[in-house]
Amino acid sequence: MSLRLRKHIEEIITLSDAEFDYILSHFELKKFRKHQYVVQEGNDVDQEYFVLEGLLKSTYLNEDGKEHILQFSMENWWVTDYQAFNNHEKATLNIDCIEDVIVLVLTDSNKNKLCSEMHKMEHFFRIKTNTGYVGLQQRILSFLKFDARSRYMHLIEKYPQLYQRVPKTLMASYLGVSRETLSRFSA
Amino acid sequence: MSLRLRKHIEEIITLSDAEFDYILSHFELKKFRKHQYVVQEGNDVDQEYFVLEGLLKSTYLNEDGKEHILQFSMENWWVTDYQAFNNHEKATLNIDCIEDVIVLVLTDSNKNKLCSEMHKMEHFFRIKTNTGYVGLQQRILSFLKFDARSRYMHLIEKYPQLYQRVPKTLMASYLGVSRETLSRFSA
Repeated sequence: MSLRLRKHIEEIITLSDAEFDYILSHFELKKFRKHQYVVQEGNDVDQEYFVLEGLLKSTYLNEDGKEHILQFSMENWWVTDYQAFNNHEKATLNIDCIEDVIVLVLTDSNKNKLCSEMHKMEHFFRIKTNTGYVGLQQRILSFLKFDARSRYMHLIEKYPQLYQRVPKTLMASYLGVSRETLSRFSA
Repeated sequence: MSLRLRKHIEEIITLSDAEFDYILSHFELKKFRKHQYVVQEGNDVDQEYFVLEGLLKSTYLNEDGKEHILQFSMENWWVTDYQAFNNHEKATLNIDCIEDVIVLVLTDSNKNKLCSEMHKMEHFFRIKTNTGYVGLQQRILSFLKFDARSRYMHLIEKYPQLYQRVPKTLMASYLGVSRETLSRFSA
C-alpha cells in the first residue's frame, strides 16, 4: 500500500529504493473508522495525513452550530488543519471520516527533518503546496465566477468519484445550497 | 530598496552578503504606473512579482463584464496568477495597479534555478507558499464564517493600511457587498 505514496512522490521527483524506504520510515500507518475525528477543533495539530484509502471532510463549526465544509479529501490527497499545523496553533477545523480511512501520518518534526535532509523532498513539498494553493484559489474563484449549479457541474466533472461517495447532504453543504436545490441540479 | 527583499527573505532563512547578491542578480526591478496591467487575461505568465512599493489588485472578469476581486497585494507580498505561473497556462486573472508600483520581477526559470541551486531558497519558497495557502484558506473560511460586516471588521483590523489605500468601491467588491452597504459599515 506504501507503493501509492511512492508513485505519488515520484510524480514530481525520482527516488531510489533506499531513499523511498528512508522516507517511508518517517511515516506511520493509521486507520480511522467512519465518523472518527482525525483533527478536532481546539487541539494541537502536529500531524499531516496522506490518504491511502477513504474519504474525509474538513469542516468549520459556526457559533450557531452550523457545519461548513471547507473541503473533501480522498486517496492521494494530503490533509490536515494547515493553519494550525504550519503556525503551531490550535485547530480551528474539524476533520472527520466520511468512510473508513487509512492514512500515512507524517509529524511536523519528521516533515521538517525530511525537508532539511533531502533537498528533493523540500522540492516535492513546495510543488505540492503550490498545487494546493492553486486549488484553493480555484475554489474562491468558483464562488465568484459561478452560480451553485455551475459549481456542481464543475465538481462532478472534475471529481466524478466524489459524486458517488459523498452523501448528498454534505455535497449540498459544500456547494452552499439546500438539499432540495441540489436534487434539482441532479434531476 | 533591495534591502526590503533581503529583510523579507531573512525572516525565514539567513543569508550571507554574497548569497543575497547572487539571489538579487536573478531579479529585475520594474516600475508600473497606476492603472497599468502587470498580468493580463489570456497571456502567458512566466513572472512572479515581489512588491517593493504600491498596491495591486488581482481580479477575475465575469462573462457579463463584472470584475471580481480575488485579492489585493502591497509591500512585501508576492503576486502573480499562480495557476498560470505554476502550470504554464494562460492567465485567467488580471492584475493591475491601484497605485504606482515598483516590483522585483522573478522569472519562472530563475525561481526554479534559485530553488535547485540553493536548498535554503527552496525552503524559503516552500514556507512562503504555506503562508499563502493558509491565507487563502482563511479567505474561504471568512466567507463561510462571517457576514459581510464581520469580514469588513476583520479586514481593517488585520490590514489597517488597506482601508486607507483601497478605494471604497474596490473594497466593497472585495467584500462582495454594494458600495452603499459598505458605507453603512464604516458609519
